Amino acid sequence: MKKLHFVAAAVIGLASALPAAAQFQKPEDAIKYRQSAMTLIGAHFGRIAAMAQGKIPFDAKTAAENAALVDTLVHLPFAAFGEGTERGAPTQAKPEIWKEPAKFKSAAEKLQDEVGKLNVAAKTGSLDAIKGAVGGVGKACKACHDDFRSKEFTSN
Amino acid sequence: MKKLHFVAAAVIGLASALPAAAQFQKPEDAIKYRQSAMTLIGAHFGRIAAMAQGKIPFDAKTAAENAALVDTLVHLPFAAFGEGTERGAPTQAKPEIWKEPAKFKSAAEKLQDEVGKLNVAAKTGSLDAIKGAVGGVGKACKACHDDFRSKEFTSN
Repeated sequence: MKKLHFVAAAVIGLASALPAAAQFQKPEDAIKYRQSAMTLIGAHFGRIAAMAQGKIPFDAKTAAENAALVDTLVHLPFAAFGEGTERGAPTQAKPEIWKEPAKFKSAAEKLQDEVGKLNVAAKTGSLDAIKGAVGGVGKACKACHDDFRSKEFTSN
Repeated sequence: MKKLHFVAAAVIGLASALPAAAQFQKPEDAIKYRQSAMTLIGAHFGRIAAMAQGKIPFDAKTAAENAALVDTLVHLPFAAFGEGTERGAPTQAKPEIWKEPAKFKSAAEKLQDEVGKLNVAAKTGSLDAIKGAVGGVGKACKACHDDFRSKEFTSN
């Protein structure tokens, strides 16, 4: 299979040192990488959200640790949506990601911004502050998924 | 399907705040999580290894950023090998993980230790120091994979 060499961050214009460092030789590598990053983000954000929703007991230290981790992870996946990664493995990525890159970039930055606020809130140890910030992150997740993520995986 | 509630870290005995926070309701969640963490570790360690091997140009800042990230990520996957996660989704995890937990724990800690050394080496900006540490991490990866990872995925 043809190998693609690209720095995805440059294509999408999300300047950040870490994602720029994550280069991918094949589209399926980029797809697997971004899906993996999203899985970890979801798992660790979900842990904080469960506390905010009263589904599990609130533990300030655990919330802060998870928020710091999500604040690191949330800078990873967007470098892996480079041109040429629309297909190559089953993916929920919509074509709009590559048709409307400025809008996608804005949605990604909105998420990163909200996660940054959650990290700050979690460091305070205040459950009320965390609840508010979790809401902001949840909205940013949903807005981006509504516009840029299909419900079904493509089968290629 | 029956839902399992467990804190995997307690089962395997890998005490670390972050992994302990990552609970999983279903075995497939744990399997997907640990595979995702390993994918990210491989991608970012691979970037440093490629520099150490002269396959891509050495950039001290990029190497240090990737090493710091791997040093965070390497503490994640082992909490997701809890009892009950032997099966549930296609996995390369060998039964030996659960048959020889002390040996598995030791292999995981060896990897974490070597990655810690890589992180220290990368901060110095010395390619020679990084080369040595990359070798140590690579050996720890291989040793654990040889003993605890199957070449093929189980099909369940």
